[in-house]
Amino acid sequence: MSTENRQPSSHELTALQWELLHELRHNSSRAVMLHQMIADRLGLNATDHKCLDYLNRSGPVTAGQLAELTGLTTGAITNVIDRLEQAGYVIRDKDPNDRRRVVVKPAPAATGHMSPLFESLFQSTLALVSRYSEQDARLIVDFLQQCNAIALEEMNKLKEQRP
Amino acid sequence: MSTENRQPSSHELTALQWELLHELRHNSSRAVMLHQMIADRLGLNATDHKCLDYLNRSGPVTAGQLAELTGLTTGAITNVIDRLEQAGYVIRDKDPNDRRRVVVKPAPAATGHMSPLFESLFQSTLALVSRYSEQDARLIVDFLQQCNAIALEEMNKLKEQRP
Repeated sequence: MSTENRQPSSHELTALQWELLHELRHNSSRAVMLHQMIADRLGLNATDHKCLDYLNRSGPVTAGQLAELTGLTTGAITNVIDRLEQAGYVIRDKDPNDRRRVVVKPAPAATGHMSPLFESLFQSTLALVSRYSEQDARLIVDFLQQCNAIALEEMNKLKEQRP
Repeated sequence: MSTENRQPSSHELTALQWELLHELRHNSSRAVMLHQMIADRLGLNATDHKCLDYLNRSGPVTAGQLAELTGLTTGAITNVIDRLEQAGYVIRDKDPNDRRRVVVKPAPAATGHMSPLFESLFQSTLALVSRYSEQDARLIVDFLQQCNAIALEEMNKLKEQRP
Protein backbone atom coordinates (compact mmCIF):
# COMPACT_ATOMS: atom_id res chain seq x y z
CA MET A 1 0.00 0.00 0.00
CA SER A 2 1.19 3.51 -0.68
CA THR A 3 1.94 5.53 2.42
CA GLU A 4 3.45 8.62 0.82
CA ASN A 5 1.64 11.84 0.09
CA ARG A 6 -1.35 10.79 2.12
CA GLN A 7 -2.92 12.22 5.22
CA PRO A 8 -4.55 9.69 7.51
CA SER A 9 -8.17 10.78 7.37
CA SER A 10 -9.39 9.85 10.80
CA HIS A 11 -6.38 8.16 12.39
CA GLU A 12 -3.38 9.98 13.74
CA LEU A 13 -0.56 7.46 13.82
CA THR A 14 2.49 7.52 16.05
CA ALA A 15 5.95 7.12 14.50
CA LEU A 16 5.96 3.50 15.57
CA GLN A 17 2.55 2.80 14.05
CA TRP A 18 3.82 4.27 10.76
CA GLU A 19 6.82 1.99 11.05
CA LEU A 20 4.45 -0.95 11.48
CA LEU A 21 2.58 0.10 8.34
CA HIS A 22 5.88 0.36 6.49
CA GLU A 23 7.08 -3.08 7.66
CA LEU A 24 3.79 -4.64 6.63
CA ARG A 25 4.11 -3.21 3.15
CA HIS A 26 7.71 -4.33 3.01
CA ASN A 27 6.63 -7.78 4.17
CA SER A 28 4.12 -8.08 1.37
CA SER A 29 6.78 -6.97 -1.14
CA ARG A 30 9.23 -9.57 0.13
CA ALA A 31 6.54 -12.26 -0.07
CA VAL A 32 5.77 -11.37 -3.68
CA MET A 33 9.46 -11.28 -4.65
CA LEU A 34 10.51 -14.46 -2.85
CA HIS A 35 7.59 -16.46 -4.16
CA GLN A 36 8.15 -15.15 -7.66
CA MET A 37 11.75 -16.37 -7.42
CA ILE A 38 10.69 -19.82 -6.22
CA ALA A 39 7.94 -19.98 -8.84
CA ASP A 40 10.52 -19.09 -11.51
CA ARG A 41 12.55 -22.12 -10.52
CA LEU A 42 9.50 -24.30 -10.97
CA GLY A 43 8.57 -22.67 -14.27
CA LEU A 44 5.37 -21.24 -12.79
CA ASN A 45 4.06 -17.77 -12.07
CA ALA A 46 3.61 -16.73 -8.44
CA THR A 47 -0.19 -17.12 -8.46
CA ASP A 48 -0.10 -20.63 -9.92
CA HIS A 49 2.55 -21.55 -7.44
CA LYS A 50 0.56 -20.28 -4.48
CA CYS A 51 -2.56 -22.11 -5.70
CA LEU A 52 -0.49 -25.27 -5.76
CA ASP A 53 0.56 -24.50 -2.20
CA TYR A 54 -3.09 -24.13 -1.14
CA LEU A 55 -3.84 -27.44 -2.89
CA ASN A 56 -0.98 -29.20 -1.14
CA ARG A 57 -2.50 -28.19 2.17
CA SER A 58 -6.17 -28.79 1.36
CA GLY A 59 -5.94 -32.10 -0.47
CA PRO A 60 -8.31 -32.84 -3.40
CA VAL A 61 -10.88 -30.06 -3.93
CA THR A 62 -13.18 -28.91 -6.72
CA ALA A 63 -12.25 -25.88 -8.80
CA GLY A 64 -14.96 -23.93 -6.98
CA GLN A 65 -13.54 -24.84 -3.59
CA LEU A 66 -10.05 -23.82 -4.70
CA ALA A 67 -11.44 -20.46 -5.86
CA GLU A 68 -13.00 -20.06 -2.42
CA LEU A 69 -9.73 -20.94 -0.62
CA THR A 70 -7.54 -18.66 -2.69
CA GLY A 71 -9.96 -15.79 -3.11
CA LEU A 72 -9.60 -15.89 -6.90
CA THR A 73 -12.55 -15.84 -9.30
CA THR A 74 -13.73 -19.17 -10.73
CA GLY A 75 -12.67 -17.93 -14.16
CA ALA A 76 -9.15 -17.19 -12.97
CA ILE A 77 -8.89 -20.49 -11.11
CA THR A 78 -9.78 -22.48 -14.25
CA ASN A 79 -6.84 -20.91 -16.06
CA VAL A 80 -4.56 -21.60 -13.09
CA ILE A 81 -5.59 -25.28 -13.00
CA ASP A 82 -5.14 -25.60 -16.78
CA ARG A 83 -1.59 -24.25 -16.56
CA LEU A 84 -0.70 -26.38 -13.52
CA GLU A 85 -2.13 -29.49 -15.19
CA GLN A 86 -0.19 -28.82 -18.39
CA ALA A 87 3.03 -28.35 -16.39
CA GLY A 88 2.42 -31.67 -14.61
CA TYR A 89 1.87 -30.25 -11.13
CA VAL A 90 -1.80 -31.18 -10.66
CA ILE A 91 -4.21 -33.74 -12.01
CA ARG A 92 -7.98 -33.57 -12.51
CA ASP A 93 -9.71 -36.69 -11.32
CA LYS A 94 -13.17 -38.03 -10.48
CA ASP A 95 -14.09 -37.64 -6.83
CA PRO A 96 -14.06 -41.21 -5.38
CA ASN A 97 -17.01 -40.25 -3.15
CA ASP A 98 -19.05 -38.74 -5.97
CA ARG A 99 -18.11 -39.87 -9.48
CA ARG A 100 -20.04 -37.00 -11.09
CA ARG A 101 -17.74 -34.48 -9.43
CA VAL A 102 -14.26 -33.58 -10.70
CA VAL A 103 -11.60 -32.71 -8.13
CA VAL A 104 -8.13 -31.30 -8.56
CA LYS A 105 -5.20 -32.76 -6.66
CA PRO A 106 -1.45 -32.26 -6.60
CA ALA A 107 0.48 -34.66 -8.82
CA PRO A 108 2.67 -36.83 -6.56
CA ALA A 109 5.86 -35.67 -8.35
CA ALA A 110 5.09 -31.99 -7.67
CA THR A 111 5.58 -32.15 -3.91
CA GLY A 112 9.11 -33.48 -4.28
CA HIS A 113 10.03 -30.62 -6.61
CA MET A 114 8.83 -27.94 -4.23
CA SER A 115 10.05 -29.20 -0.87
CA PRO A 116 13.79 -28.47 -1.20
CA LEU A 117 13.09 -24.86 -2.19
CA PHE A 118 11.03 -24.34 0.95
CA GLU A 119 13.04 -26.35 3.43
CA SER A 120 15.42 -23.58 4.40
CA LEU A 121 12.63 -20.98 4.67
CA PHE A 122 10.63 -23.41 6.76
CA GLN A 123 13.52 -24.08 9.16
CA SER A 124 14.32 -20.36 9.63
CA THR A 125 10.68 -19.51 10.27
CA LEU A 126 10.34 -22.43 12.66
CA ALA A 127 13.29 -21.15 14.68
CA LEU A 128 11.80 -17.65 14.69
CA VAL A 129 8.34 -18.59 15.96
CA SER A 130 9.76 -20.99 18.54
CA ARG A 131 11.25 -18.01 20.37
CA TYR A 132 7.85 -16.39 21.05
CA SER A 133 5.96 -16.76 24.31
CA GLU A 134 2.32 -17.86 24.20
CA GLN A 135 1.17 -14.34 24.98
CA ASP A 136 3.29 -12.69 22.29
CA ALA A 137 2.47 -15.39 19.73
CA ARG A 138 -1.25 -14.84 20.38
CA LEU A 139 -0.88 -11.09 19.78
CA ILE A 140 0.91 -11.65 16.46
CA VAL A 141 -1.52 -14.37 15.34
CA ASP A 142 -4.42 -12.00 16.00
CA PHE A 143 -2.69 -9.23 14.09
CA LEU A 144 -1.93 -11.47 11.10
CA GLN A 145 -5.48 -12.81 11.05
CA GLN A 146 -6.76 -9.25 10.80
CA CYS A 147 -4.30 -8.49 8.00
CA ASN A 148 -5.41 -11.62 6.16
CA ALA A 149 -9.06 -10.67 6.57
CA ILE A 150 -8.35 -7.20 5.17
CA ALA A 151 -6.53 -8.71 2.17
CA LEU A 152 -9.45 -11.05 1.44
CA GLU A 153 -11.89 -8.17 1.75
CA GLU A 154 -9.86 -6.15 -0.76
CA MET A 155 -9.77 -9.10 -3.15
CA ASN A 156 -13.55 -9.40 -2.93
CA LYS A 157 -13.95 -5.68 -3.59
CA LEU A 158 -11.73 -5.96 -6.65
CA LYS A 159 -13.77 -8.91 -7.91
CA GLU A 160 -16.99 -6.93 -7.53
CA GLN A 161 -15.52 -4.00 -9.45
CA ARG A 162 -14.62 -6.31 -12.34
CA PRO A 163 -17.00 -5.47 -15.21
CA MET B 1 6.29 -22.62 3.41
CA SER B 2 5.13 -26.19 3.74
CA THR B 3 4.27 -27.27 7.24
CA GLU B 4 2.74 -30.67 6.57
CA ASN B 5 4.52 -34.00 6.90
CA ARG B 6 7.48 -32.43 8.61
CA GLN B 7 8.94 -32.90 12.02
CA PRO B 8 10.54 -29.84 13.58
CA SER B 9 14.15 -30.89 13.76
CA SER B 10 15.35 -29.02 16.81
CA HIS B 11 12.31 -26.95 17.79
CA GLU B 12 9.27 -28.32 19.51
CA LEU B 13 6.46 -25.89 18.78
CA THR B 14 3.34 -25.30 20.83
CA ALA B 15 -0.06 -25.38 19.12
CA LEU B 16 -0.08 -21.59 19.11
CA GLN B 17 3.38 -21.36 17.54
CA TRP B 18 2.18 -23.71 14.78
CA GLU B 19 -0.80 -21.45 14.35
CA LEU B 20 1.57 -18.51 13.97
CA LEU B 21 3.53 -20.40 11.32
CA HIS B 22 0.27 -21.17 9.54
CA GLU B 23 -0.94 -17.57 9.64
CA LEU B 24 2.39 -16.34 8.30
CA ARG B 25 2.16 -18.70 5.36
CA HIS B 26 -1.42 -17.68 4.81
CA ASN B 27 -0.36 -14.04 4.98
CA SER B 28 2.22 -14.54 2.28
CA SER B 29 -0.35 -16.34 0.11
CA ARG B 30 -2.82 -13.50 0.51
CA ALA B 31 -0.12 -10.96 -0.37
CA VAL B 32 0.74 -12.83 -3.54
CA MET B 33 -2.91 -13.23 -4.57
CA LEU B 34 -4.01 -9.69 -3.78
CA HIS B 35 -1.02 -8.13 -5.52
CA GLN B 36 -1.49 -10.37 -8.52
CA MET B 37 -5.08 -9.17 -8.74
CA ILE B 38 -4.07 -5.51 -8.53
CA ALA B 39 -1.23 -6.08 -11.01
CA ASP B 40 -3.72 -7.71 -13.40
CA ARG B 41 -5.80 -4.54 -13.37
CA LEU B 42 -2.72 -2.55 -14.33
CA GLY B 43 -1.69 -5.06 -17.02
CA LEU B 44 1.47 -5.97 -15.08
CA ASN B 45 2.75 -9.09 -13.37
CA ALA B 46 3.07 -9.04 -9.58
CA THR B 47 6.86 -8.65 -9.57
CA ASP B 48 6.85 -5.70 -11.98
CA HIS B 49 4.11 -4.11 -9.96
CA LYS B 50 6.01 -4.50 -6.68
CA CYS B 51 9.18 -3.08 -8.27
CA LEU B 52 7.13 -0.08 -9.29
CA ASP B 53 5.96 0.20 -5.70
CA TYR B 54 9.58 0.17 -4.47
CA LEU B 55 10.40 2.83 -7.06
CA ASN B 56 7.49 5.02 -5.99
CA ARG B 57 8.91 4.99 -2.49
CA SER B 58 12.60 5.37 -3.32
CA GLY B 59 12.44 8.01 -6.03
CA PRO B 60 14.92 7.90 -8.96
CA VAL B 61 17.50 5.09 -8.59
CA THR B 62 19.87 3.20 -10.86
CA ALA B 63 18.99 -0.31 -12.03
CA GLY B 64 21.64 -1.64 -9.63
CA GLN B 65 20.12 0.20 -6.69
CA LEU B 66 16.66 -1.12 -7.57
CA ALA B 67 18.07 -4.66 -7.68
CA GLU B 68 19.52 -4.06 -4.23
CA LEU B 69 16.20 -2.71 -2.85
CA THR B 70 14.05 -5.49 -4.25
CA GLY B 71 16.47 -8.37 -3.76
CA LEU B 72 16.23 -9.33 -7.44
CA THR B 73 19.26 -10.05 -9.64
CA THR B 74 20.50 -7.26 -11.92
CA GLY B 75 19.54 -9.45 -14.89
CA ALA B 76 15.98 -9.83 -13.65
CA ILE B 77 15.67 -6.13 -12.81
CA THR B 78 16.67 -5.11 -16.35
CA ASN B 79 13.78 -7.16 -17.74
CA VAL B 80 11.41 -5.65 -15.16
CA ILE B 81 12.45 -2.09 -16.09
CA ASP B 82 12.13 -2.87 -19.81
CA ARG B 83 8.57 -4.11 -19.32
CA LEU B 84 7.59 -1.21 -17.04
CA GLU B 85 9.08 1.29 -19.50
CA GLN B 86 7.25 -0.26 -22.41
CA ALA B 87 3.97 -0.16 -20.49
CA GLY B 88 4.55 3.52 -19.70
CA TYR B 89 4.97 3.17 -15.93
CA VAL B 90 8.64 4.22 -15.64
CA ILE B 91 11.09 6.30 -17.59
CA ARG B 92 14.88 5.99 -17.91
CA ASP B 93 16.59 9.32 -17.59
CA LYS B 94 20.04 10.84 -17.08
CA ASP B 95 20.84 11.53 -13.44
CA PRO B 96 20.78 15.36 -13.10
CA ASN B 97 23.67 15.09 -10.59
CA ASP B 98 25.80 12.84 -12.78
CA ARG B 99 24.97 12.94 -16.49
CA ARG B 100 26.90 9.72 -17.16
CA ARG B 101 24.55 7.76 -14.93
CA VAL B 102 21.11 6.52 -15.98
CA VAL B 103 18.37 6.43 -13.37
CA VAL B 104 14.90 4.93 -13.47
CA LYS B 105 11.91 6.87 -12.16
CA PRO B 106 8.16 6.42 -12.08
CA ALA B 107 6.34 8.08 -14.96
CA PRO B 108 4.10 10.81 -13.50
CA ALA B 109 0.99 9.20 -15.03
CA ALA B 110 1.68 5.86 -13.30
CA THR B 111 1.08 7.06 -9.74
CA GLY B 112 -2.46 8.19 -10.52
CA HIS B 113 -3.28 4.76 -11.94
CA MET B 114 -2.21 2.88 -8.84
CA SER B 115 -3.58 4.99 -6.02
CA PRO B 116 -7.31 4.19 -6.21
CA LEU B 117 -6.60 0.45 -6.15
CA PHE B 118 -4.61 0.84 -2.95
CA GLU B 119 -6.71 3.48 -1.22
CA SER B 120 -9.13 1.09 0.43
CA LEU B 121 -6.35 -1.31 1.50
CA PHE B 122 -4.42 1.62 2.90
CA GLN B 123 -7.37 2.94 4.92
CA SER B 124 -8.19 -0.48 6.40
CA THR B 125 -4.57 -1.10 7.37
CA LEU B 126 -4.29 2.38 8.82
CA ALA B 127 -7.30 1.71 11.03
CA LEU B 128 -5.82 -1.63 12.10
CA VAL B 129 -2.39 -0.34 13.14
CA SER B 130 -3.88 2.70 14.89
CA ARG B 131 -5.42 0.34 17.45
CA TYR B 132 -2.05 -0.98 18.66
CA SER B 133 -0.24 0.31 21.74
CA GLU B 134 3.41 1.34 21.43
CA GLN B 135 4.53 -1.80 23.21
CA ASP B 136 2.49 -4.16 21.04
CA ALA B 137 3.37 -2.29 17.83
CA ARG B 138 7.06 -2.62 18.73
CA LEU B 139 6.71 -6.37 19.21
CA ILE B 140 5.00 -6.78 15.83
CA VAL B 141 7.47 -4.49 14.05
CA ASP B 142 10.35 -6.59 15.44
CA PHE B 143 8.67 -9.79 14.34
CA LEU B 144 7.99 -8.50 10.82
CA GLN B 145 11.56 -7.21 10.50
CA GLN B 146 12.83 -10.68 11.31
CA CYS B 147 10.44 -12.23 8.78
CA ASN B 148 11.62 -9.75 6.16
CA ALA B 149 15.26 -10.53 6.94
CA ILE B 150 14.56 -14.27 6.55
CA ALA B 151 12.85 -13.68 3.20
CA LEU B 152 15.82 -11.63 1.93
CA GLU B 153 18.22 -14.31 3.12
CA GLU B 154 16.24 -16.96 1.22
CA MET B 155 16.25 -14.81 -1.90
CA ASN B 156 20.02 -14.46 -1.65
CA LYS B 157 20.42 -18.21 -1.22
CA LEU B 158 18.29 -18.82 -4.30
CA LYS B 159 20.38 -16.34 -6.29
CA GLU B 160 23.58 -18.14 -5.29
CA GLN B 161 22.13 -21.49 -6.33
CA ARG B 162 21.32 -20.13 -9.79
CA PRO B 163 23.74 -21.79 -12.24
